[in-house]
Amino acid sequence: MIDPIVVEIVRGGLVESRHRGAIAVVDAGGKKIFTAGDVANLVFPRSAVKPFQALPLAESGAAEKFGLSDDELALCCASHNGEPAHVRGVERILTKAGFDASALACGTHWPASQSAAMALARAGAAPSALHNNCSGKHAGFLCVARAMQFDPSGYWRPDHAVQQRVHAVLEDLTGVTLPPDRRAIDGCSVPTWALPLENLALAFARFGSGRGFAPERAAAAARLLAACVREPWYVAGSGRFCTEIMQLLGAQALVKTGAEGVMCAALPALALGVAIKCDDGAGRAAEALMAATLARLLTLDDRQRAALGRFAQPKIRNWNDIETGELRVCLEFDGLAGR
Amino acid sequence: MIDPIVVEIVRGGLVESRHRGAIAVVDAGGKKIFTAGDVANLVFPRSAVKPFQALPLAESGAAEKFGLSDDELALCCASHNGEPAHVRGVERILTKAGFDASALACGTHWPASQSAAMALARAGAAPSALHNNCSGKHAGFLCVARAMQFDPSGYWRPDHAVQQRVHAVLEDLTGVTLPPDRRAIDGCSVPTWALPLENLALAFARFGSGRGFAPERAAAAARLLAACVREPWYVAGSGRFCTEIMQLLGAQALVKTGAEGVMCAALPALALGVAIKCDDGAGRAAEALMAATLARLLTLDDRQRAALGRFAQPKIRNWNDIETGELRVCLEFDGLAGR
Repeated sequence: MIDPIVVEIVRGGLVESRHRGAIAVVDAGGKKIFTAGDVANLVFPRSAVKPFQALPLAESGAAEKFGLSDDELALCCASHNGEPAHVRGVERILTKAGFDASALACGTHWPASQSAAMALARAGAAPSALHNNCSGKHAGFLCVARAMQFDPSGYWRPDHAVQQRVHAVLEDLTGVTLPPDRRAIDGCSVPTWALPLENLALAFARFGSGRGFAPERAAAAARLLAACVREPWYVAGSGRFCTEIMQLLGAQALVKTGAEGVMCAALPALALGVAIKCDDGAGRAAEALMAATLARLLTLDDRQRAALGRFAQPKIRNWNDIETGELRVCLEFDGLAGR
Repeated sequence: MIDPIVVEIVRGGLVESRHRGAIAVVDAGGKKIFTAGDVANLVFPRSAVKPFQALPLAESGAAEKFGLSDDELALCCASHNGEPAHVRGVERILTKAGFDASALACGTHWPASQSAAMALARAGAAPSALHNNCSGKHAGFLCVARAMQFDPSGYWRPDHAVQQRVHAVLEDLTGVTLPPDRRAIDGCSVPTWALPLENLALAFARFGSGRGFAPERAAAAARLLAACVREPWYVAGSGRFCTEIMQLLGAQALVKTGAEGVMCAALPALALGVAIKCDDGAGRAAEALMAATLARLLTLDDRQRAALGRFAQPKIRNWNDIETGELRVCLEFDGLAGR
């Protein structure tokens, strides 16, 4: 099956580029509400499953033991921009659990936010592992190790007790077995597991609703979900899609991006999960398609509808701020009635 | 026609993402040597045609009048990194023609080179239009206006005498009529014209060989080609694909990238042109496919062959420098024998 064209890039009225992809909208019972493309295809969810990777943090009592606040829990689920308050938040988490930045194994990169990166350079400073977009997730792993009295060294390795707990969580949420030959290494060195796109959507439906979970897992998921939708700036940052969509929609959606064109959402009140993978790894197309999908699924006020419309059809402007084109979602949502 | 998958992104032994695209290899007489995908499809060549856009500069006598050197001519054909020597070179061109940076209409962005951008920020400075990757091309347009005594104001507009000359050059090289409904606005505000991919390849074959050109045009093309292959660092910059491939291959190839997954080459000795467009706009795939194509077309020594192989199958490394995957060219070059 060849995935359909989901988003076109238009310039001067002509199609300049086109993105193919697949999307699954699944309810917490596993029923497919809407699909396009090959939703049985294996995808690496990458950072989209950070909220699931944080479940051991909330379930183990580590989050409570170290008194993690909403913004700190949101950082543990984040692909953050490396802005100053993100960095300070990750430092606080580490301090609470008795670590410092040297314990982080995520590697170092300049802040994803260009203005944060430039400010850092202007101050004559260099980035540390704290600026890595995954540093909050790694701080959460270290909290789990400390609270459960595991040796924290090598906490990122597949055979470490922390990653084994994460692996069990992923198998439970997605309903699929994840053997070693489905495992690859993520950008921050922890395992990422290939799984069918439809099961990724199912996992988001279950995470958002808690349906089918043991009580402790349901409570942990609800705690993380609440933290993310209350503190969406800590899940990504200034100007970022996930943050702006969650600021717009409040408790209606948890939205989480992953590298290589992955974009997922949990819609708690509807007990639905959405998973998108652009075949070519394009985040721009995944964002536009997610905005168009949310506009179909959710009950919105006029302001929310107009804003989602802008995210679904963003204008392209050049260095002189002249409008040169736009993105256009061209997937037909046949059979997916507005709610 | 659905374009074939040309490049796959592999992680942990599994395909994570895939890029579709089209490629045309055409000789200077218009014969298609090899094609894959829909090569009649209209594409915006974007910056790939900067060497053609510089032809009026060389033909009009402006380059000679202002004494432009090889590195300066290469900058006029460049999508440069905004590194200090690029910026100084563009300033020199402007000074020679009696302008300064305020005449540039390309807009301002931080240098494409991260290290150049960080160095600029560290020095407490901000970018100017000189740092725009297109500033050399714009400086070349201004030289044409000055030498031909056109009013330079609005030199970037479609109806300005400079752009009308560029338009005529593009029609001549590609062999297609470019009416206003094929025109869009490029990132630096000058026109970009949609044309069939196979005609873009033809234009590169003709530019590289001079075949079918009037003598003045052939001489101008040879002058620009020589400048680019002698000074490839000025065509892109440190660590950039176009620069490194031209440093590797010497006079065997002019290689020029364009935004949205365009990659072109002129192979002068073979009188061939190559044009690649990745459907989704991915530069990473266009680069790998170009490297694999050049390895098929050119006569190479062992070092060149090994280096092109690395560009055709680059490793993906994460922030801890762990190898997490690779790009893999999966287009079969059926019927394209090695030479």
